[in-house]
Amino acid sequence: MRLAELSTRSGVSTATIKYYLREGLLPPGRRMTATQAEYDENHLQRLRLVRALIQVGRVPVASAREVLTALENETLDHNSRLGTALYALPHGPEPAEDDPAAETAHHTVDTLLERIGWQYSQDIGPRSPAYAMLVTAVGTLARLGYPCAVDDLAPYAGAAAQLGVSDLDLMERYGSLDAQLEAAIALTVLYEPVLLSLRRLAQAEESNRRFGQGSSPERA
Amino acid sequence: MRLAELSTRSGVSTATIKYYLREGLLPPGRRMTATQAEYDENHLQRLRLVRALIQVGRVPVASAREVLTALENETLDHNSRLGTALYALPHGPEPAEDDPAAETAHHTVDTLLERIGWQYSQDIGPRSPAYAMLVTAVGTLARLGYPCAVDDLAPYAGAAAQLGVSDLDLMERYGSLDAQLEAAIALTVLYEPVLLSLRRLAQAEESNRRFGQGSSPERA
Repeated sequence: MRLAELSTRSGVSTATIKYYLREGLLPPGRRMTATQAEYDENHLQRLRLVRALIQVGRVPVASAREVLTALENETLDHNSRLGTALYALPHGPEPAEDDPAAETAHHTVDTLLERIGWQYSQDIGPRSPAYAMLVTAVGTLARLGYPCAVDDLAPYAGAAAQLGVSDLDLMERYGSLDAQLEAAIALTVLYEPVLLSLRRLAQAEESNRRFGQGSSPERA
Repeated sequence: MRLAELSTRSGVSTATIKYYLREGLLPPGRRMTATQAEYDENHLQRLRLVRALIQVGRVPVASAREVLTALENETLDHNSRLGTALYALPHGPEPAEDDPAAETAHHTVDTLLERIGWQYSQDIGPRSPAYAMLVTAVGTLARLGYPCAVDDLAPYAGAAAQLGVSDLDLMERYGSLDAQLEAAIALTVLYEPVLLSLRRLAQAEESNRRFGQGSSPERA
């Protein structure tokens, strides 16, 4: 298909597609004439992933490029390509260097992982950004005086374990390995707002159950 | 305590505390002399909440003020004060007006809520920002061609239901109603990075389980 059709089918403007091409987020089309190139279904699929990363995940262009490079790195096995791509996603603030709460938080996280039986690996442990993000979050809770003991965190880890299973189930529906990896990254980013909004609705439901006077669609 | 002690105990600089006072995010201290005021434990607790909202939740100052005003609105009952405060938290992008995916997404969300038995109420339904956020997220998944049928979403809603229970359990540990409301808002914001990082770790754990060659702490 031509650029115009790629734009119509993806809902992304031709100017934005050209920008993604220039930035290397989208591989060049097959050159037909000096001014025209031909694009295929792979371009369309890649464009969806780029939109997911940049528009929903608010991933900076440089990080998006890193994610895509990891996905395409055929020297790595399946699991490592996924891990490397997830590494490149943004993970919030770095832990503060001089934070006295950080060491306690580190210990809490390790105890939590041990309790739920998640073993240290390439992607689970001090070298992984998700682990660092969790230590930072727990350190912040501690510093601000909010509950963050292993017992407080355990139910959240339990719910997360279920989410991990759902995420991988969705991913495994995709046929090829490449499609699975691409879907894993897109779904990680795109399901974050799904999850956070469902949690707030669940809080409201639970609050209604505990304190409410029955639900009423007419209450303003 | 004096401003300097409030600063030491909270870890917030005196300049930032003065800024919060000017912006009405922190109630004024008890005036002692023309230049000195006395602060108490309530100021310290409020300062923690403000830090949670602004630093971790990246809530704009105006929204933070709205959240705090809702918490203090004694004309509302417990449930409504919590609901109004949660309303004022940021909820991501508004649904696009002319999005053909929005109507389908709306229907998907309603079917999902019915399936899991969450009834429309003040805080669950088209007028609630969490509901709008969910519709937007589902619409984006649909537009980009990723799975977002009711069956796909149901496991996430199931996990969220557990999170709602954990959240309310943490909140109910606080003694007074005011402290409960304040904790509910802080914990909503502060547990978001906990949850998202745990989900990524759970993905890694599940990916190791399905595709990995056993975990090894030495793999680089």
